[in-house]
Amino acid sequence: MGTIDGKEFVTRLNLLKNDVWVKGEKVKGAISEHSAFQGVVKSKAALYDMQTGEHKSVLTHTEQGITYGTSFMKPKTKEDLEKRRNATQLWARKSGGMMGRAPDYMNTAIMAFSSGASLIEKKHKKGSENLVQLYEKAKNLDLSFTHTYVSPQVNRGSFYYEDWEEEPIAAQAVKKTKDGLLFKGARLLATQGGLTDELLVFSTGVKGLDEKGAFAFSIPSNTEGLTFLCREPFSYHSSSFNYPLSSRFDELDAIVIFNNVLVPWENLFFYEDKQAAESLFLRSSYVSLILHQVVSRQVVKLEFTLGVAQSIVDTINISEYQHVQAKISEIVIALETMRGLLLTSEKEAQKDQFGIMAPSVHPLYVAVTLFSNTYPRLTEIVELLGASGLITLPTEADFDSEMGEKLNYYLQSFSKGGYERVKLFRLAWDMTLSAFGTRQTLYERFFFGDPIRLLSNMYRSYPRRNYQEFVENFLDQ
Amino acid sequence: MGTIDGKEFVTRLNLLKNDVWVKGEKVKGAISEHSAFQGVVKSKAALYDMQTGEHKSVLTHTEQGITYGTSFMKPKTKEDLEKRRNATQLWARKSGGMMGRAPDYMNTAIMAFSSGASLIEKKHKKGSENLVQLYEKAKNLDLSFTHTYVSPQVNRGSFYYEDWEEEPIAAQAVKKTKDGLLFKGARLLATQGGLTDELLVFSTGVKGLDEKGAFAFSIPSNTEGLTFLCREPFSYHSSSFNYPLSSRFDELDAIVIFNNVLVPWENLFFYEDKQAAESLFLRSSYVSLILHQVVSRQVVKLEFTLGVAQSIVDTINISEYQHVQAKISEIVIALETMRGLLLTSEKEAQKDQFGIMAPSVHPLYVAVTLFSNTYPRLTEIVELLGASGLITLPTEADFDSEMGEKLNYYLQSFSKGGYERVKLFRLAWDMTLSAFGTRQTLYERFFFGDPIRLLSNMYRSYPRRNYQEFVENFLDQ
Amino acid sequence: MGTIDGKEFVTRLNLLKNDVWVKGEKVKGAISEHSAFQGVVKSKAALYDMQTGEHKSVLTHTEQGITYGTSFMKPKTKEDLEKRRNATQLWARKSGGMMGRAPDYMNTAIMAFSSGASLIEKKHKKGSENLVQLYEKAKNLDLSFTHTYVSPQVNRGSFYYEDWEEEPIAAQAVKKTKDGLLFKGARLLATQGGLTDELLVFSTGVKGLDEKGAFAFSIPSNTEGLTFLCREPFSYHSSSFNYPLSSRFDELDAIVIFNNVLVPWENLFFYEDKQAAESLFLRSSYVSLILHQVVSRQVVKLEFTLGVAQSIVDTINISEYQHVQAKISEIVIALETMRGLLLTSEKEAQKDQFGIMAPSVHPLYVAVTLFSNTYPRLTEIVELLGASGLITLPTEADFDSEMGEKLNYYLQSFSKGGYERVKLFRLAWDMTLSAFGTRQTLYERFFFGDPIRLLSNMYRSYPRRNYQEFVENFLDQ
Amino acid sequence: MGTIDGKEFVTRLNLLKNDVWVKGEKVKGAISEHSAFQGVVKSKAALYDMQTGEHKSVLTHTEQGITYGTSFMKPKTKEDLEKRRNATQLWARKSGGMMGRAPDYMNTAIMAFSSGASLIEKKHKKGSENLVQLYEKAKNLDLSFTHTYVSPQVNRGSFYYEDWEEEPIAAQAVKKTKDGLLFKGARLLATQGGLTDELLVFSTGVKGLDEKGAFAFSIPSNTEGLTFLCREPFSYHSSSFNYPLSSRFDELDAIVIFNNVLVPWENLFFYEDKQAAESLFLRSSYVSLILHQVVSRQVVKLEFTLGVAQSIVDTINISEYQHVQAKISEIVIALETMRGLLLTSEKEAQKDQFGIMAPSVHPLYVAVTLFSNTYPRLTEIVELLGASGLITLPTEADFDSEMGEKLNYYLQSFSKGGYERVKLFRLAWDMTLSAFGTRQTLYERFFFGDPIRLLSNMYRSYPRRNYQEFVENFLDQ
Repeated sequence: MGTIDGKEFVTRLNLLKNDVWVKGEKVKGAISEHSAFQGVVKSKAALYDMQTGEHKSVLTHTEQGITYGTSFMKPKTKEDLEKRRNATQLWARKSGGMMGRAPDYMNTAIMAFSSGASLIEKKHKKGSENLVQLYEKAKNLDLSFTHTYVSPQVNRGSFYYEDWEEEPIAAQAVKKTKDGLLFKGARLLATQGGLTDELLVFSTGVKGLDEKGAFAFSIPSNTEGLTFLCREPFSYHSSSFNYPLSSRFDELDAIVIFNNVLVPWENLFFYEDKQAAESLFLRSSYVSLILHQVVSRQVVKLEFTLGVAQSIVDTINISEYQHVQAKISEIVIALETMRGLLLTSEKEAQKDQFGIMAPSVHPLYVAVTLFSNTYPRLTEIVELLGASGLITLPTEADFDSEMGEKLNYYLQSFSKGGYERVKLFRLAWDMTLSAFGTRQTLYERFFFGDPIRLLSNMYRSYPRRNYQEFVENFLDQ
Repeated sequence: MGTIDGKEFVTRLNLLKNDVWVKGEKVKGAISEHSAFQGVVKSKAALYDMQTGEHKSVLTHTEQGITYGTSFMKPKTKEDLEKRRNATQLWARKSGGMMGRAPDYMNTAIMAFSSGASLIEKKHKKGSENLVQLYEKAKNLDLSFTHTYVSPQVNRGSFYYEDWEEEPIAAQAVKKTKDGLLFKGARLLATQGGLTDELLVFSTGVKGLDEKGAFAFSIPSNTEGLTFLCREPFSYHSSSFNYPLSSRFDELDAIVIFNNVLVPWENLFFYEDKQAAESLFLRSSYVSLILHQVVSRQVVKLEFTLGVAQSIVDTINISEYQHVQAKISEIVIALETMRGLLLTSEKEAQKDQFGIMAPSVHPLYVAVTLFSNTYPRLTEIVELLGASGLITLPTEADFDSEMGEKLNYYLQSFSKGGYERVKLFRLAWDMTLSAFGTRQTLYERFFFGDPIRLLSNMYRSYPRRNYQEFVENFLDQ
Repeated sequence: MGTIDGKEFVTRLNLLKNDVWVKGEKVKGAISEHSAFQGVVKSKAALYDMQTGEHKSVLTHTEQGITYGTSFMKPKTKEDLEKRRNATQLWARKSGGMMGRAPDYMNTAIMAFSSGASLIEKKHKKGSENLVQLYEKAKNLDLSFTHTYVSPQVNRGSFYYEDWEEEPIAAQAVKKTKDGLLFKGARLLATQGGLTDELLVFSTGVKGLDEKGAFAFSIPSNTEGLTFLCREPFSYHSSSFNYPLSSRFDELDAIVIFNNVLVPWENLFFYEDKQAAESLFLRSSYVSLILHQVVSRQVVKLEFTLGVAQSIVDTINISEYQHVQAKISEIVIALETMRGLLLTSEKEAQKDQFGIMAPSVHPLYVAVTLFSNTYPRLTEIVELLGASGLITLPTEADFDSEMGEKLNYYLQSFSKGGYERVKLFRLAWDMTLSAFGTRQTLYERFFFGDPIRLLSNMYRSYPRRNYQEFVENFLDQ
Repeated sequence: MGTIDGKEFVTRLNLLKNDVWVKGEKVKGAISEHSAFQGVVKSKAALYDMQTGEHKSVLTHTEQGITYGTSFMKPKTKEDLEKRRNATQLWARKSGGMMGRAPDYMNTAIMAFSSGASLIEKKHKKGSENLVQLYEKAKNLDLSFTHTYVSPQVNRGSFYYEDWEEEPIAAQAVKKTKDGLLFKGARLLATQGGLTDELLVFSTGVKGLDEKGAFAFSIPSNTEGLTFLCREPFSYHSSSFNYPLSSRFDELDAIVIFNNVLVPWENLFFYEDKQAAESLFLRSSYVSLILHQVVSRQVVKLEFTLGVAQSIVDTINISEYQHVQAKISEIVIALETMRGLLLTSEKEAQKDQFGIMAPSVHPLYVAVTLFSNTYPRLTEIVELLGASGLITLPTEADFDSEMGEKLNYYLQSFSKGGYERVKLFRLAWDMTLSAFGTRQTLYERFFFGDPIRLLSNMYRSYPRRNYQEFVENFLDQ
């Protein structure tokens, strides 16, 4: 019980035999060896392995003699928050911040939701207990999760309501039985869908369904009737020279199809209750804690971006140009800003009603909002610095061929031979311009939702009244 | 003699047996059937085919009874410019403006340079004649060209000079023989390198070589010692559903290696003469005419972008949102602006000293400069509109599998079934987020050179004096 | 009859004795000599004077032997449009484009509305005739106009309707008599209000009034009950060294108050008819013609801005810096873009149903939309170039004092003595940073309405369908 | 000894009889009653008065029983930094952050320089002692200071060196006597020049003078030969309704002329020593401490801006619009970002070699750099929100006139009567669009120097090496 290592993770995953489809075919045999998944599974396994070695003190914590993952730890002090940040960043460094769904992300979500379980206790006694038990189980078995928060993007018009007769599009309960609820329909964008032990479903509402569209549960990924349909994999090639990131960190995203899936009562937290959904989301410290994990990772991504950009600058010797200096400084500004907001959220953390030390939410909300605009700009800076050097990119096979020597000579740079230089530039390319790289950018852009909605939410939630009073008093003086 | 059709183009190309390498292997057999090249060769052949059918009147012109390609036509009137624009745009529409090197691009270059051949007549009588003859030959045989304008990006520091002892990096003449000059070294970024009849080399200088680095010639692509090393191909898959653009228009970019290549005297225009290079570039109407071709194509690309963006809007029904309207309007503004500058360049065209009707260069220079910033923003708009819909993209094989029906149902949108909707979104993705799409963006960003240098050039070349006088008079009044 | 000169303009204006208030006092005596108005009245008079001198051929046209102002000319050919443009720009150059309401602006409006008078003929026969007669009278007497298009900004919420019991806020007809309609209430932002012969009121609707809020008429500025309440004047000082622009071109903006103003039937064009308002606005060539005037002026303003910016660059010798070159090039881009759109609107002009040669509206609409964002950025560039030099600005009195010599010495620059340099910098300051300068920027920002609404309008009116078909055909090929 | 109150400040200032010129005239009589200075002197006096009342515990600290201003306190702990921040912000709130040179700014500078006095001890023993003594004296007498850091902007070309024969332009020592050094020439932009007890001159170099151009001293403002030439005052009117900011906080900026001014040896810190200048600037905690003061004030300015913007939104009821919400959120983002960087600089503060608790400099450097770009954008937001409401601005006299009642009625808004609404809008106008407001924006833009140079400095000083190692390790793994 407690933390697992990489081998346990892989073994357990393969045993699940989840129903996963990719490129028109159902995955057969060990999913960990399938070409589309082997890279990311191996990378994830490596994270679990770190829980036992030199990083154990950062990545785990002990309760009553048992060692659990740090990301499952409920923070009670500011030091706990610091420890959580360090754990997240240590894992994030393994992928340059490119794994949006390292295990700590969902672990944090489960921990945070369960901390506020009592919020739904009154109306959903059993559900509240189920949620607490899920957390205990997850922590004890070091379970991994994926989740789906959104319904299919059928029609985004403001007056659209799904109006189905026979077949729902957005997944929903279609029948109640003595064993549980029967779900039918689809939900979107389970990142790593099919690669985890469990699937968490949390719905704050489905258009046109109101109360009925609000439900939450967690079920094993191999529950009968559950199918994961993956988008096209971007790990086109397993060469880590050609695709240093795609080949290792392509987490894939799946459409989840519920074909009369039975969700047992003991897996359900609540259903037909919008207010319960809102309570758990907004009145627990969920948002605060999950953003703390997210921003911690994003800071690492910025460190990585700064390192890549500066390496390009040195490689082709453009450090002297004022506009180059300004571009690197833009990355520095982004990094320091995000770091400043993250640390401030810890400095101003306060205990919530459940005894959780919750980071201050406003700086974190500002941070993710900024990041959704800034990260695309920073990838643009990498492109502007690399310029034509990001086009002339031979492959590993070219360097291995009889042309290799010539390439190494002609593509040499100020500080590197052709091979080393192309290796760096391929990393820069894979981070920004490959199908993997652009999916990263899109992912960050929309990480916390539509950027325009983010700003409206910020408007509504930010306490502005005291600043108006400041001005009113000023006018009256 | 005169125009060819697609079949002639392909036959001739295959006969050349150019020395082309891709993914570590030398191309053997018919290059037109190689997986990396078949798409673009077929697309190019289709353009040549258009010269004979319904579009003949636009795409060709007649001189002394012979039919030549319009892009070879020397414009003498404003109507000629309009005809040239129409021809370029007709071809551009076949690829949504995605082929930067449709044949008319290099045809225009050859035509424009040769028009100013007399500029180098005094010092390079033979070279001047060679240039004129190349034009005649190209026009008569409908030859296709690639070119390389730049040296390897070894070191972009301002004080760097290549200083080699045994082996030059940047290609240059290493020996003079009675038959011609012997070239050794590399040059960069021949788009469609190895896929054309001829290679035009035009060098305005090589760092550290001064006069010696300035030379220009055109040689057949299959000249002995000439090797084309392609970057990794982005036509990962031949399905035009999966990759509507990559599979058809990936032009590839090649490093060109000169391994003691003999350039015969009759192919040479000049050498060891920086001033000749500058004359041909700046005192002929080359810049003006080539920009007229480029901007004509870019306008088509904007039309295509507008069409794609608006189709996304309608598909997911987001037309009502103010920020969506603003984003589409941004594309409209870009389109109308580019169109306005293009038409103004024709309206203000003037005959140059060689009798060529040259479009006004300032509006065109402004247009390409604008485009290098605007196009990346417009692709960003496509991403912002498509949002998560650009992530959930199954492949053709998925739709063909037993899961196809479900996908078609669950991915349906306001106006389309899942299959049709994914088809559109895959186009949007391939235009902006695939490796092909991002290479397009990078290509447009740097099309006419480093954007910062573009602005400095504009500063230097734009006539500002009269506006200062305007202000001086105002102050004195 | 026909054109007047400056003296006639001033004499007529003074005779009107309009009811104008400024800084808490009613203007008494000759308004042309009042400190708040003398500058702009003199500047306007100078424009009228130009109609008789060397510029007569540009500024006037002849019909049946009589000479009228060019801005009253109904364009029938593309040459007419060119002439109109030249006339507008000639006048605009006198103020560096800083007079938004040089007489040609309203002259064009009157001409354009009257050209479409037949649009309301059916329902408003008399009103239609009144409109035509107003045009004839205006042209014959060279009348000057101001107008008010908007109601007070009480509440911009989307569900607000003015709901008054005793006193309307937004001006409206409160009583119908045999002589005409009685108006009560206020209207906003009559630029040069009280400084013109006539006041044109054109209302497309008042919140909460629907049909009743739509009316249009023109009445003499000295009509009984009509009061013009000016904002604070920005001509703080009459020294043209200190305030080269404020002292000459502060047009002032007035709130217009109707205190039971009788609008005679013969001055009315229509009332209680929203559709008539929309017809005249949208189905005549009004928008196209007025934008042609506006953009012509804005181009001059950009020329002036370029001249000022370049003069600063030369004065303090910063021409060598790349970022300075980029900033000047930004102005060049703006200028060429606006010019390109303007010329294209003429190139693509078409005759409307009334025989008017109407410039193409889309390029012009794009131009004004661009300008509302670009002009503020260009003034920012002037600030960035001038930098601290825009703070250290002594006055004329300082140079005239015993400290003058020292100032002239210590404030010298690369190319100018201190006095001359401060003269230039004060111009730059007055254009961008003085109360006059910022009002200019605000004026251009909102010239054609809320920038966000502009983009939505563009979205709705621009023909996008053919571009979608382009993409549909592409997908189907 | 120790803190003074407002009355003492004013009395002392008037006694100095500094040689101050404004609008061509030398100030005679009590400067505190001169129309150009009365507002700012009164505002400053009010700050001194706060040192004795309810805010005493924040604004002062006690050493050995004596009460000194908090801004003179050398921080030894993080709590001290917090206290310093609170003191700065308390004063800043009195002006909405509009007084860039509230006394704490220069007090902090004097404190910070003197803390590092030992850096120059070796070569300038006496100077080092003079610096320490200046600090003690300043603290004891609560002296106020202005300073000049820059030379006249004669020629900003990179190769310019001032080359004078008879008369230097940039102030410098022209003669050495037994009593001290004789200075001649000008220095720029002493904000509040002539309104303080002392003038601090700190020169890191004058073009063309090298060592000779580096010197530092502090002398009484009324030293013989010292003249302050003020720019035009922007307190055009003393009405605080019309000009709520200009009338109270226009600090004025002066050119300082040295007409053979004797700087006694005991006032001199060093001269002819570039290295001493650099040491004091870069190796003391000067930058860190002064930025801590600056950013503390800027945060207050953002709070004020948010309050003004939100008040406009509520007044005209535009809260519902998404773009309005986004604009307010932009201000929130700026505020939280600056706050986060400020708090992080304290969290990561470290003791320097002199025992000073120095805030971390990188977050602060990022903060001021961000602010120089952000503040102009935020004032733009205020303009965009206020829109035409910022043009229709009658004066107090208008409301006092017989038109007042009408104005109050017609200019009413959703939540305010016309008078109150105009009062708020005039504040917004005075903050952004008046000559005072634009000078504020320019001041913030260039506060810490040329924004482009700021970015280059950041590039050079920021530790980036570890991030490159991060990437190198990643590539090697």
